[in-house]
Amino acid sequence: MKDKILLAYSGGLDTSAIIPWLKDTYNADVIAYCSDLGNAPDKETIGNKAYELGASEFIFEDVQDMFASNFIFPMMRSGAIYQDDYLLGTAIARPLIAERLVHWANKKGAYAIAHGATGKGNDQIRFERGIAYLNPKLKIIAPWKIWDFKGREDLSKYLNSKGFPYEDKDKVYSEDVNLLHRSCEGGILENVEQAYPAEDVLKWVNPEIEKKSGVFTASFKHGLLIKINGKEVDPLQGMEQLNCLGKEYGVGITDLVEERFNGVKSRGIYETPGGTILYTLVKTLKHICWDKTTQKISRRLADDYADLVYDGKWHSTARKSLEAFFQESGKYLEGEVSFKIINGKIIIDSRTSPYSLYDKKLVSFEDDEFGLNEASNGFCKTIIFSSQLEGTQNENFTNKS
Amino acid sequence: MKDKILLAYSGGLDTSAIIPWLKDTYNADVIAYCSDLGNAPDKETIGNKAYELGASEFIFEDVQDMFASNFIFPMMRSGAIYQDDYLLGTAIARPLIAERLVHWANKKGAYAIAHGATGKGNDQIRFERGIAYLNPKLKIIAPWKIWDFKGREDLSKYLNSKGFPYEDKDKVYSEDVNLLHRSCEGGILENVEQAYPAEDVLKWVNPEIEKKSGVFTASFKHGLLIKINGKEVDPLQGMEQLNCLGKEYGVGITDLVEERFNGVKSRGIYETPGGTILYTLVKTLKHICWDKTTQKISRRLADDYADLVYDGKWHSTARKSLEAFFQESGKYLEGEVSFKIINGKIIIDSRTSPYSLYDKKLVSFEDDEFGLNEASNGFCKTIIFSSQLEGTQNENFTNKS
Amino acid sequence: MKDKILLAYSGGLDTSAIIPWLKDTYNADVIAYCSDLGNAPDKETIGNKAYELGASEFIFEDVQDMFASNFIFPMMRSGAIYQDDYLLGTAIARPLIAERLVHWANKKGAYAIAHGATGKGNDQIRFERGIAYLNPKLKIIAPWKIWDFKGREDLSKYLNSKGFPYEDKDKVYSEDVNLLHRSCEGGILENVEQAYPAEDVLKWVNPEIEKKSGVFTASFKHGLLIKINGKEVDPLQGMEQLNCLGKEYGVGITDLVEERFNGVKSRGIYETPGGTILYTLVKTLKHICWDKTTQKISRRLADDYADLVYDGKWHSTARKSLEAFFQESGKYLEGEVSFKIINGKIIIDSRTSPYSLYDKKLVSFEDDEFGLNEASNGFCKTIIFSSQLEGTQNENFTNKS
Amino acid sequence: MKDKILLAYSGGLDTSAIIPWLKDTYNADVIAYCSDLGNAPDKETIGNKAYELGASEFIFEDVQDMFASNFIFPMMRSGAIYQDDYLLGTAIARPLIAERLVHWANKKGAYAIAHGATGKGNDQIRFERGIAYLNPKLKIIAPWKIWDFKGREDLSKYLNSKGFPYEDKDKVYSEDVNLLHRSCEGGILENVEQAYPAEDVLKWVNPEIEKKSGVFTASFKHGLLIKINGKEVDPLQGMEQLNCLGKEYGVGITDLVEERFNGVKSRGIYETPGGTILYTLVKTLKHICWDKTTQKISRRLADDYADLVYDGKWHSTARKSLEAFFQESGKYLEGEVSFKIINGKIIIDSRTSPYSLYDKKLVSFEDDEFGLNEASNGFCKTIIFSSQLEGTQNENFTNKS
Repeated sequence: MKDKILLAYSGGLDTSAIIPWLKDTYNADVIAYCSDLGNAPDKETIGNKAYELGASEFIFEDVQDMFASNFIFPMMRSGAIYQDDYLLGTAIARPLIAERLVHWANKKGAYAIAHGATGKGNDQIRFERGIAYLNPKLKIIAPWKIWDFKGREDLSKYLNSKGFPYEDKDKVYSEDVNLLHRSCEGGILENVEQAYPAEDVLKWVNPEIEKKSGVFTASFKHGLLIKINGKEVDPLQGMEQLNCLGKEYGVGITDLVEERFNGVKSRGIYETPGGTILYTLVKTLKHICWDKTTQKISRRLADDYADLVYDGKWHSTARKSLEAFFQESGKYLEGEVSFKIINGKIIIDSRTSPYSLYDKKLVSFEDDEFGLNEASNGFCKTIIFSSQLEGTQNENFTNKS
Repeated sequence: MKDKILLAYSGGLDTSAIIPWLKDTYNADVIAYCSDLGNAPDKETIGNKAYELGASEFIFEDVQDMFASNFIFPMMRSGAIYQDDYLLGTAIARPLIAERLVHWANKKGAYAIAHGATGKGNDQIRFERGIAYLNPKLKIIAPWKIWDFKGREDLSKYLNSKGFPYEDKDKVYSEDVNLLHRSCEGGILENVEQAYPAEDVLKWVNPEIEKKSGVFTASFKHGLLIKINGKEVDPLQGMEQLNCLGKEYGVGITDLVEERFNGVKSRGIYETPGGTILYTLVKTLKHICWDKTTQKISRRLADDYADLVYDGKWHSTARKSLEAFFQESGKYLEGEVSFKIINGKIIIDSRTSPYSLYDKKLVSFEDDEFGLNEASNGFCKTIIFSSQLEGTQNENFTNKS
Repeated sequence: MKDKILLAYSGGLDTSAIIPWLKDTYNADVIAYCSDLGNAPDKETIGNKAYELGASEFIFEDVQDMFASNFIFPMMRSGAIYQDDYLLGTAIARPLIAERLVHWANKKGAYAIAHGATGKGNDQIRFERGIAYLNPKLKIIAPWKIWDFKGREDLSKYLNSKGFPYEDKDKVYSEDVNLLHRSCEGGILENVEQAYPAEDVLKWVNPEIEKKSGVFTASFKHGLLIKINGKEVDPLQGMEQLNCLGKEYGVGITDLVEERFNGVKSRGIYETPGGTILYTLVKTLKHICWDKTTQKISRRLADDYADLVYDGKWHSTARKSLEAFFQESGKYLEGEVSFKIINGKIIIDSRTSPYSLYDKKLVSFEDDEFGLNEASNGFCKTIIFSSQLEGTQNENFTNKS
Repeated sequence: MKDKILLAYSGGLDTSAIIPWLKDTYNADVIAYCSDLGNAPDKETIGNKAYELGASEFIFEDVQDMFASNFIFPMMRSGAIYQDDYLLGTAIARPLIAERLVHWANKKGAYAIAHGATGKGNDQIRFERGIAYLNPKLKIIAPWKIWDFKGREDLSKYLNSKGFPYEDKDKVYSEDVNLLHRSCEGGILENVEQAYPAEDVLKWVNPEIEKKSGVFTASFKHGLLIKINGKEVDPLQGMEQLNCLGKEYGVGITDLVEERFNGVKSRGIYETPGGTILYTLVKTLKHICWDKTTQKISRRLADDYADLVYDGKWHSTARKSLEAFFQESGKYLEGEVSFKIINGKIIIDSRTSPYSLYDKKLVSFEDDEFGLNEASNGFCKTIIFSSQLEGTQNENFTNKS
């Protein structure tokens, strides 16, 4: 019996070429694994193709539920956003794929996992780290970093030479689609000094839409969305419904020059309709349910969380420990946020929570039943001392320099 | 000759009542100081009123230039934003007023400065800290924390009793206007569980506007805006022109429940048209001119910077040291960003910089002239070791627990 | 039946005077509560005294077990240390006392809790915040902030006038003792420009000791000490034994000018023999069991943790969420550390852990079985690109400025 | 004329072998560069050896002054320390060497710089990054990552084969010595489960020393040491004198398992006598001259600073911007600290500063001339509200779960 290699297979040109190349190079059986993360691959077509290309087995899974429940929702609770603007749609899918790959490699007795990511991008490290965390004994094969093929044309030729007619359609950019986002990079988008042709690039969200929605209500428990307009939703349904909303009303376009894990700057166009709405709602809830210290610490941790997801460290002790922080603090993120969408902009209408720290009586200028005005004499007097001392310091400095 | 008290005087009900009250209570001459920060007070009207109310002197200054150059622009370079969403329009004006108050108190020989801020809000501490840093020997008088008046009605009666007819117009909320923003809080806005009536509250920015702009170009040097559409602007002109843009195209509405310095949560509606545009442009420039480490450190420092401004610590060693950080790192924030505005949303068109760290040749999938694909074998192999070790750790943990 | 006030009573001058004062001022029954935190109060003596002074009830508890298990050990796992140097011996005891006070106030039906902390120190806020978190409806009475007595002499006179002969012994400084430390502040220590008389101030640890210990071994699980020299210890025993060690061999003296919660700088002398050893051992374990990212995040969180403990926010959402972080990351802090003590200095001998990330084979210069030398070509080539780009940036800057 | 390669040459086995190897491999002239960083290389001996081995030129520089002034002192002002314990003695020397290498490569017209660091350690990346920042066009040659030699024995054989008799002395560990420290790693030290033989490994500091010093006074300006015992010292003299002190009285031994840049954990023994004293003194000064906010921000920045130095990013925008922060905040680090050393432990005697924020009158329990006790009623009342609200939140949580 031959050794087995499990391949993360999408049915595209790259991973199609990898099937025969692995067989030739490693004299092994190739098991092609494909999952549906919301990108809706055609199971039958790409399965047949895998067998034609020589795969010994084809495995297909719909993992959308897991994706929404175990990855998107916890990440959204944390408020993670990469380099100010990127909601991590591609990055957060990778550790799930790594989990499934390791699961199947273990189950099928494969000694290695192969992936089609290049040596220039982020996905290589996300796949490879994910696998390393989950089964450090598995060998990783990354053909793009080994073979002599230089680009898509070489791959087409190779496939043709092996008897597989493959016609390379000119791609003007490359895209990634899943339940959380649609992203585009490469090709015409590499010119950051030029506006991209929105009509060609954007498929989910139209920035020019002019439309005003009614009021929607989202309910949360433990920092996780549980109802929309009063009707219970599971995480997958929640994402789907928010995506519908965001697409219909034009929410969630980002154009970002980000820095990759390896230090190379890259430009991505992201459409994240439901994710953008969810991000905004969770943030709104934090503003009433968390005091400023919890908020401040969590903003910093969300930034670290984003780096860990982006860099492929989902399964690290660091990320899991951050998760514990957000699980605990998330206990108080419960309540309802109502909002409407006007021309692609989310407008908050109201927020209520059993854990709200907002107290109208305290803040109101109208009356002062707690005697805050008088108390503030002592308050300001107390804290002003240190500023006065720094003031004296400044005087010393002025006199000396 | 009587002792002198300098009063931060706006011409409104509160500081109007304070003039006779100070005279009665402290038997002192009251110098009324008023500045124009972009709120366009009517110098003559309120000056006359000050004299009528018994002020011994009225001082008026247009400080918009200082405000834009020394306060708004440096803060905007840092990327400071309070609790995710507030661009600090009111907070950043306070240290400038404190500077001017101390300047005039020193010059006129006043022994005390009085202000009209209440004991429940943030401004009390901003004024009092500012004064403490700049001249710790000055006495501070905050009538709202001392007198027995309970609210606006009491003040009207008091003024009437002193022979000054003052008719209190019902305010449904209180507002603050300056070059950076228009903010509203209190009154009907205190109900955070209800949508506010946008048509009554918003005066600068219409969220329902449907309008698509042409392309604008903003040029930066040292992180500061220096040109719009190729024409040089000074900071004041820059802010004014960006405000025009933002107002015309509907940019910059925020509805935030924030936590005040004293731990009380409060809700503010902010219209920050020009500031929102400027914030976005500076962020865009950082993405191409700063590496990820500088970006990460500066995001955290911007968060600290925001706290310091919000809490009235502009003149502290901490804030000045952060400024030094941004002055140094800002040296590389030079270049041009082009953008358009569609229905209130800012769309970046292009970014160029002599210091750009974006390199199309490095990132392109098309070819690989630097051999990044091959190099990545060693790269990933090297960094994967630590993940594999953590993987072994996980195994231990799994086996033991 | 009279209303009841629960008093945090130590038997010292201040809280002795408070008993009759509370009765006079509030016409209430006073329940005197006293706990043993390792300071070994003489239950009988101070209990009798409480009754003599007019207390309606005296409650005494030994809470050392709780103190070690629920407070000291979790805090030590986090690595919290205040302003570089203070191991928080006093601060960490306060939330436990607050817990017990609220427990007894609830149980006995007291409507208020009184404490003897002054308005200048940290303890007031620690007691008051602790109570506010645990039962926000309880009234808090802080006599030092209300009554007219100015100092210890006034208190003695007051007690004498009430028929209680109280002879005030001159204190040259004030001290606090518990299971974690002995601290001194005030009096002669307020002169920070002078060396303190070590022979008078230090009681637990002699800095001049000249002594070399044998080798001790400490075992940890979940970041908590579980064995010393192979013998199981519970947290209280662990602290006691480490204290013995530290005292015998001269470990753990700190002389720190720290900044209090209210911005006032204060000088403390701390003797923390066992705590200093424990802190060092946990740190040593982290160095082998945690990767650098977990370490870096946790250093920052330990700093926040220290502030929260110092400022009396033990029961806050923020602190509890940090605890969750350390509980999760602490799962890997298991193993043994051996050490000896030479003239008051802790010397690590060895560290072993089932979760150790140290791998001799990887690091050794002797051979290179994993091919790290060759891999590093690709590694360095990859990461050097971004530095080269910044190098180009520097050149631009040099040429332009 | 041949192309030129500049070699960072120490006279040791590795860089000796590199001279003929470079000539053979690249057919180039090899210029051997050697600097004195406090390690006192014998210029004549190693210069002669370089020529014998075939170098076309030998350059020698004493750079101790630059090292102390431009590298050690600014770093010490920041408080940088790596992973809790390492004062960065080796790391901080590397960017200086990189500067000198680039200086001489530019001056002599070399097209490449070669170094003797292996592919497993930190120095490779420090040299290579330093060069990349300063002249990104220079080629870098790292023979250890290219050639086939496996270890020291191979190098000896190679040198012998080229006619250079080289007798390899068995090294039980490798060491690095300069003005800031002496460090040891590798060999017998790779066993972290065993105590190292202190008598063999430690050369500068004896942990068993029993000795009590008199009182020393160190004076600072702008955070930099300027006087010892009232006598002006330049940075080099300052380091030398503190090193003498530390060595005489037994200060500054560290045994640390640290994580290298590439994720590999490694164990180092560090003797940093003068550096440890300087680190302690600067920290002491910060405690009186900086408020807690400046201290807190700077602790975090010192941690980032340490990472940047360790990872070879001295010349990055990030590090330079941090330097600007410490230059500004350092303006207030002026004054005197007196200390003695007892059995290797530094004991602070006194601290004075024109910028001291310590105010005996404020802190004293003895009297209360500023009315802090009374003011604290309003102070605590004000800040307790938010804790009470969180308390209500906890109740909700308790009731619900």
